[in-house]
Amino acid sequence: MSFKVGIIGAGPSGLAMLRAFESEQKKGNEIPEIKCFEKQDNWGGMWNYTWRTGVGKYGEPLHGSMYRYLWSNGPKECLEFSDYTFSEHFGKPISSYPPREVLFDYIEGRIKQSNARKYIKFNTVARWVDYDEESKTFRVIFDDLANNRTFEEVFDYLIVATGHFSTPNMPYFKGIDKFPGAVMHAHDFRGADQFSGKDILLVGSSYSAEDIGVQCYKHGVNSVTISYRSNPIGCKWPEEIKEVALLTHFEGDTAYFKDGSSKRFDAVVFCTGYQHKFPFLPDSLRLKTKNCLYPDKLYKGIIFNEATNLLYLGMQDQYYTFNMFDAQAWFARDYMLGRVAIPDKLEREKDIKEWMDNEARTVSGDDHIDFQTAYIKDLMNNTDYPDFNLDKVADLFKSWLKDKEDNILTYRDKVYQSVMDDVHAEKHHTPWIKELDDSYERFFEE
Amino acid sequence: MSFKVGIIGAGPSGLAMLRAFESEQKKGNEIPEIKCFEKQDNWGGMWNYTWRTGVGKYGEPLHGSMYRYLWSNGPKECLEFSDYTFSEHFGKPISSYPPREVLFDYIEGRIKQSNARKYIKFNTVARWVDYDEESKTFRVIFDDLANNRTFEEVFDYLIVATGHFSTPNMPYFKGIDKFPGAVMHAHDFRGADQFSGKDILLVGSSYSAEDIGVQCYKHGVNSVTISYRSNPIGCKWPEEIKEVALLTHFEGDTAYFKDGSSKRFDAVVFCTGYQHKFPFLPDSLRLKTKNCLYPDKLYKGIIFNEATNLLYLGMQDQYYTFNMFDAQAWFARDYMLGRVAIPDKLEREKDIKEWMDNEARTVSGDDHIDFQTAYIKDLMNNTDYPDFNLDKVADLFKSWLKDKEDNILTYRDKVYQSVMDDVHAEKHHTPWIKELDDSYERFFEE
Ligand SMILES: Cc1cc2nc3c(=O)[nH]c(=O)nc-3n(C[C@H](O)[C@H](O)[C@H](O)COP(=O)(O)OP(=O)(O)OC[C@H]3O[C@@H](n4cnc5c(N)ncnc54)[C@H](O)[C@@H]3O)c2cc1C
Ligand SMILES: Cc1cc2nc3c(=O)[nH]c(=O)nc-3n(C[C@H](O)[C@H](O)[C@H](O)COP(=O)(O)OP(=O)(O)OC[C@H]3O[C@@H](n4cnc5c(N)ncnc54)[C@H](O)[C@@H]3O)c2cc1C
Ligand SMILES: NC(=O)c1ccc[n+]([C@@H]2O[C@H](COP(=O)([O-])OP(=O)(O)OC[C@H]3O[C@@H](n4cnc5c(N)ncnc54)[C@H](OP(=O)(O)O)[C@@H]3O)[C@@H](O)[C@H]2O)c1
Ligand SMILES: NC(=O)c1ccc[n+]([C@@H]2O[C@H](COP(=O)([O-])OP(=O)(O)OC[C@H]3O[C@@H](n4cnc5c(N)ncnc54)[C@H](OP(=O)(O)O)[C@@H]3O)[C@@H](O)[C@H]2O)c1
Repeated sequence: MSFKVGIIGAGPSGLAMLRAFESEQKKGNEIPEIKCFEKQDNWGGMWNYTWRTGVGKYGEPLHGSMYRYLWSNGPKECLEFSDYTFSEHFGKPISSYPPREVLFDYIEGRIKQSNARKYIKFNTVARWVDYDEESKTFRVIFDDLANNRTFEEVFDYLIVATGHFSTPNMPYFKGIDKFPGAVMHAHDFRGADQFSGKDILLVGSSYSAEDIGVQCYKHGVNSVTISYRSNPIGCKWPEEIKEVALLTHFEGDTAYFKDGSSKRFDAVVFCTGYQHKFPFLPDSLRLKTKNCLYPDKLYKGIIFNEATNLLYLGMQDQYYTFNMFDAQAWFARDYMLGRVAIPDKLEREKDIKEWMDNEARTVSGDDHIDFQTAYIKDLMNNTDYPDFNLDKVADLFKSWLKDKEDNILTYRDKVYQSVMDDVHAEKHHTPWIKELDDSYERFFEE
Repeated sequence: MSFKVGIIGAGPSGLAMLRAFESEQKKGNEIPEIKCFEKQDNWGGMWNYTWRTGVGKYGEPLHGSMYRYLWSNGPKECLEFSDYTFSEHFGKPISSYPPREVLFDYIEGRIKQSNARKYIKFNTVARWVDYDEESKTFRVIFDDLANNRTFEEVFDYLIVATGHFSTPNMPYFKGIDKFPGAVMHAHDFRGADQFSGKDILLVGSSYSAEDIGVQCYKHGVNSVTISYRSNPIGCKWPEEIKEVALLTHFEGDTAYFKDGSSKRFDAVVFCTGYQHKFPFLPDSLRLKTKNCLYPDKLYKGIIFNEATNLLYLGMQDQYYTFNMFDAQAWFARDYMLGRVAIPDKLEREKDIKEWMDNEARTVSGDDHIDFQTAYIKDLMNNTDYPDFNLDKVADLFKSWLKDKEDNILTYRDKVYQSVMDDVHAEKHHTPWIKELDDSYERFFEE
């Protein structure tokens, strides 16, 4: 096979791409030449925890947004790979909401069985991409960070799997420049311990605000105030956590809110989401979107409509994660192998618009789940990724939303049944709210 | 004049370059086409304070390392422009150690008198540079951050004035990943207030450690421990500040040191210096150096020896700052205008080596000052930058070193005489250690 595929990023999406090719090779079929480049020193993407903040060892914007004590915020039964189950990996049932280290182990477990690592060059950042219209190839400049050395490679297909929860969206509020306490974005939050006994303000009302709020509560904060722009999260919060209207400004260490209230704080954490950022791509190849379920310009959520040999993986907002990335990677593989034909540009545009219009009509959390379920079904119809009961997963997601609403402090104690192999999860030895140790060792203690 | 000059960065060095061309134009001489690109939304480089940390509004690694309450750490008489004095700018004598905002005003004062702003495109980052060997031109890709749009420009000369105190050097110490308190690099330190009443550890023993230590003392820290690798700073510290041998590792919130001692801390600030980082330059054009007074490969500290139409400004470690950048910019201008001839490559290499050998022989602070003084003299011999008595400035620097050694808490209360216009500085209305307000308004209160 005489074409060359470049994959940028070895997070769950990039690894799914490698795995998709591997499964093809195992069937005895030929695969193209593949190279994968990862700016961190290990695979796992977001799941590769780092204590660093700001920039990494070599001065690149740091990828990791995960923190100590981070546990899955959705049931593991919703993200399970259909070709490698949790019980296959751990050899026994585990609980439904594992901590980061345990999930990292699971992600790594599948890919370690293959020779994928040999395709990956670590500590290597994609610096710049030029597209040659004539040969329809990409010239990619890479920066070998450990050796402070640049080099180029040419590819027929380029896969962008660089994630989109790394570049903080950090709005300005009047007076923030004089706020005397700590100010950070959720991206740089590394653990709740330092806020024990403190009064902290969280701006934003989505997953990060919810989870950082509860983490701080768990680790002994004095009070958490969550300030929302559009809608409050609306959980039944413990007394220490309150939601208020949007922040208007600061005076010294005091924050003022739209509803006229005000409060003194020790620290502010902006949980205001992330930007899709592709500094290595020129205008003509750059995906420009906010965080949503169906970004514009991506046919089937993957193929860049302006240059169909440029593929993006994992660019959607995520209910589904690992198994959605798999469905995308399998689709991308079959497309590159010429097995999936795509219609002409206008048709593709129409198709994209239809999906986008459908997304615009979604209202509730349940609607979003149904939308993403339909999207994955559409992909899977075209590939041999081991089929699984997506409707059942959608139902799990819907119960999860309800569980959180019922009790934000105990939803992680619930257990579910695997859709892939029917194994029932086991209750964890300790209620989540009492479990202050998130290590792998502690998790598997009897 | 038919050549085109691209300047990357509008900090003091980039602005010096614009000013050098302006002064040529004012003499009625023709100048080349100039464009300057600055990734921040204003000029002033390091002096353009930001409350943000990590990455900026548009997700670029943040440039600013300055913090609230930062005052000049050298006498203003040592950094004064020879063509625009402090008394000309402020219309009256001021004290010798002004706060950041006052120095920013001074930097801006000179450049505002010109039309320099029209040459500068803000919120625009140099993303990638290709060199065309044949035409000897640079193709530079820029990223217009506010509009998320890339574009290219071609230049005959490229001036890299991007500074080198922005990319943290952040070593790893065992156990740091589990340290429960705040961990940051000096680059992300924004003010001492949040450490009031706390026990903090500073790693490193140069200017950042010294000043952040004293700042924290001033703002009510409980204790500061400075851990050095090579040598202690060796000031006469107040009781609350102590120096200890190098950190070996952490266990929980306790740090252990080489001398066998240990201590519990609330926070750690790494004052371990910065990396020269040029992500936008290919290997063949990239300066690779540690922080020193004479980086390798730069002829006259400016001209890249492998491609003599690539010039670097301000890449040296800095005793001298603003007037050294001026001397470099004036030299660079005259070189580009063809007025300064340079010898062949081997000769240049020999010259560079000689300077580097001389630097290697320096031992004391006084030696370093003499070395940098000699360097600037060498540059000024070739240009019409208004001459000034460099030996007098060197003497000032030497007294400054002594003043700091005598009393680290009061050295900023000393006043000196301008070498440029002989004006005597005035004592500030409040001793530095008691002055908790660093604003422009407060500085000029009667
Ligand atoms: C705080 C937080 C918590 C989360 N918790 C959960 C959870 O509990 N459950 C869940 O299912 N999902 C969770 N997610 C969602 C998470 O995004 C996905 O699980 C998954 O990591 C996405 O995979 P990805 O490969 O698309 O992107 P990423 O995991 O972000 O990986 C992208 C990779 O690309 C690399 N990269 C980036 N730029 C370059 C470049 N220029 N050159 C080379 N390499 C580059 C990065 O270093 C990284 O390794 C969480 C996300 C965040 C931010
Ligand atoms: C904490 C601290 C305190 C200091 N205090 C003093 C002091 O008291 N007195 C003193 O004389 N000096 C001080 N300095 C030294 C300071 O470095 C110099 O005063 C001066 O700012 C250096 O000027 P410069 O233009 O070379 O670099 P900078 O001031 O760093 O400016 C470089 C400019 O380039 C821009 N840039 C970078 N990359 C790109 C890109 N890819 N594209 C476009 N633009 C880019 C940056 O945004 C920035 O504006 C201090 C430095 C630090 C770190
Ligand atoms: N495993 C875990 O426990 C865990 C923990 C944290 C995060 N995560 C994951 O991380 C990902 C990102 O979640 P996220 O919460 O960081 O981002 P997000 O879901 O994109 O939410 C962004 C939030 O910021 C608000 N916002 C944006 N701009 C604002 C402004 N200018 N002023 C005020 N508010 C503003 C938005 O409000 P509007 O509603 O008004 O737009 C929204 O509430 C998700 O995939 C999530 O699952 C997981
Ligand atoms: N105006 C102000 O008040 C002010 C305040 C702060 C900074 N500044 C300026 O900022 C610039 C940078 O100063 P800086 O102090 O940040 O950097 P610096 O002068 O380069 O010093 C770096 C320090 O880090 C130490 N170090 C490096 N790697 C280390 C490691 N692995 N372990 C332990 N120690 C390590 C070095 O020790 P060794 O000696 O062993 O190499 C050195 O002490 C200077 O121009 C300074 O003037 C000014």
